[in-house]
Amino acid sequence: MKATFMYGAGDVRIETVADPVIQQPTDAIVRVVRACICGSDLHPYHSMPASERGQSMGHEMIGIVEELGSAVALVKVGDFVVAPFAFQDNTCAFCRDGVQTSCVHGGFYATAETAGLQAELARVPQADGSLVKVAGADASTADEALLASLLSLSDVYLTGYHAAHMGRVEAGKTVTVIGDGAVGLSAVLASRQLGAERIILMGRHTSRTDLGIEFGATDVVAERGEEGIAKVMQLTNGEGSHIVLEAVGHMPAYEQAYGIVRPGGIISRVGVPQYEEAPVGFGSLFGKNATLTGGPAPVRAYLEPAIQQVLNGEIDPGRVFDRRVAIDEVPAGYAAMDAREALKVMVTF
Amino acid sequence: MKATFMYGAGDVRIETVADPVIQQPTDAIVRVVRACICGSDLHPYHSMPASERGQSMGHEMIGIVEELGSAVALVKVGDFVVAPFAFQDNTCAFCRDGVQTSCVHGGFYATAETAGLQAELARVPQADGSLVKVAGADASTADEALLASLLSLSDVYLTGYHAAHMGRVEAGKTVTVIGDGAVGLSAVLASRQLGAERIILMGRHTSRTDLGIEFGATDVVAERGEEGIAKVMQLTNGEGSHIVLEAVGHMPAYEQAYGIVRPGGIISRVGVPQYEEAPVGFGSLFGKNATLTGGPAPVRAYLEPAIQQVLNGEIDPGRVFDRRVAIDEVPAGYAAMDAREALKVMVTF
Repeated sequence: MKATFMYGAGDVRIETVADPVIQQPTDAIVRVVRACICGSDLHPYHSMPASERGQSMGHEMIGIVEELGSAVALVKVGDFVVAPFAFQDNTCAFCRDGVQTSCVHGGFYATAETAGLQAELARVPQADGSLVKVAGADASTADEALLASLLSLSDVYLTGYHAAHMGRVEAGKTVTVIGDGAVGLSAVLASRQLGAERIILMGRHTSRTDLGIEFGATDVVAERGEEGIAKVMQLTNGEGSHIVLEAVGHMPAYEQAYGIVRPGGIISRVGVPQYEEAPVGFGSLFGKNATLTGGPAPVRAYLEPAIQQVLNGEIDPGRVFDRRVAIDEVPAGYAAMDAREALKVMVTF
Repeated sequence: MKATFMYGAGDVRIETVADPVIQQPTDAIVRVVRACICGSDLHPYHSMPASERGQSMGHEMIGIVEELGSAVALVKVGDFVVAPFAFQDNTCAFCRDGVQTSCVHGGFYATAETAGLQAELARVPQADGSLVKVAGADASTADEALLASLLSLSDVYLTGYHAAHMGRVEAGKTVTVIGDGAVGLSAVLASRQLGAERIILMGRHTSRTDLGIEFGATDVVAERGEEGIAKVMQLTNGEGSHIVLEAVGHMPAYEQAYGIVRPGGIISRVGVPQYEEAPVGFGSLFGKNATLTGGPAPVRAYLEPAIQQVLNGEIDPGRVFDRRVAIDEVPAGYAAMDAREALKVMVTF
């Protein structure tokens, strides 16, 4: 099969490798229908040291189940499935709490445990907990918009949703979303779904913030840093934002977040922090009783109702995809996202 | 009147100064019935540079209203009142949100705005928002246990309660309280009130942890650091604590907190952080979707029902007071708390 490997910053290659095989009785082999490139894939694309050994890539896909281990009971060969970006048994104590990304038998794709999903075939561990059937749709007849929205449930939309959920977005609240990438725009759409009264989107790329407005943003703030903070404070009558959804992961975004959060408000992060230490003392969070929450999205916890919303046409999160590449063109897809020519790149097979 | 001043680390003096007078139409003058010394008063007692000018001290009291400004409507002369450790109008947007410590017209005692409360008389700004009448008790006939419990509502018990409230303590949850000072013990009592299933108290002073057990602690962990973390993990079947209430404020306590919090769990801080930066990235909070919350307790938000609970005999938070000193003996009270000979010192007049 063809699969994607990164050999260092800026060096992505498609190679032909052996097809994956069942290794554990809980495994499934899935033929990938659509995969995609994630904003988080750009971190190694910027910084990975050159290596002779390629790093398998990708963690988002929808596909058709081809083969099952002997212990798999809930998933069937031929099922059209969405795969959350992390695998999990969905039965352990943490899964039952709705924190499937901390599953005691779980893990991540493109690691030593299992290969990446920017590939024609995937071995999915813990298949019963990690694959959710799309009942009522057929991969071979579904239109591209439906495939895109289902694919977005693998990570990007439900990561935005996780931010909003952990931020306790609800009717009457003012929400500020920091970041106009695909996750930030997804957080706008999710906040709208959860009834936010006002949604301020902080971003500088008009083509992206325009989609943000279509997703439900009521205000766009292009300024950053102190100017951006001042603008949001002005928009909120000097009181700040009840909820701040931080979809970037860099320190300036975090600093903006505590600058604009209202006393008693919530900062919810889903951008993977590119820092370990940050201000949390009296001058940032503590003094105004601000809450800091968020983390890797337990997509599995939200997947069934989200699939239903997509099938019902209630949400169209797949609109974040603005470019399609065939598997052989994946390196060009990385380059386009890195150059911000593309918001989110879908991979076809 | 007699009042308490600090002139430097270890140097507390009682001085006779002019009685306070009404300065604003919203002020009240209150004769202090009981005041006390706070754990947070020990920070300057350790580190304050020597000064020729004394720093007014104290922020906790119960008393009798003596005089009122012309705009005060809710409080009456002769009322027996509890004063939250911060003053507030209790009507602004943040007060209505229940974050009275961020009141736009609020502030703190023993600052440039108004003097400290370890004194015979106090000027209380924003009296209508800052004094709550104890209906159904008389200061002159109340027994010492009742006075102690009412005094504890000025700060220490409701700070512990705030920790538990922000940590969303409820039935079925495992709570770990870090710190066996008066706030930590109050957090134990509040967690019990809120229905926690299991309450692990981390502290090394047997006389204090014994009171913690009477307040509802089910387990005591005397170990600290990595050993303390290992002990709590062992007690929680390797899963960690749903909720961690951090009542210390030093970095080792914070490190313990993220070491023992369960994936998806909550760390609620009420110990004033003696640091500004701290770990919050993938390896501490983000990776396990832990939430960090807490801040200065909006005592006013919780005061009426807590007064009722005390009057009904449902809670006895005043048991944290284990020493009484007259106003002239306040310096000895500081020394006793600093030497850990006393848990919490009450000041009589």
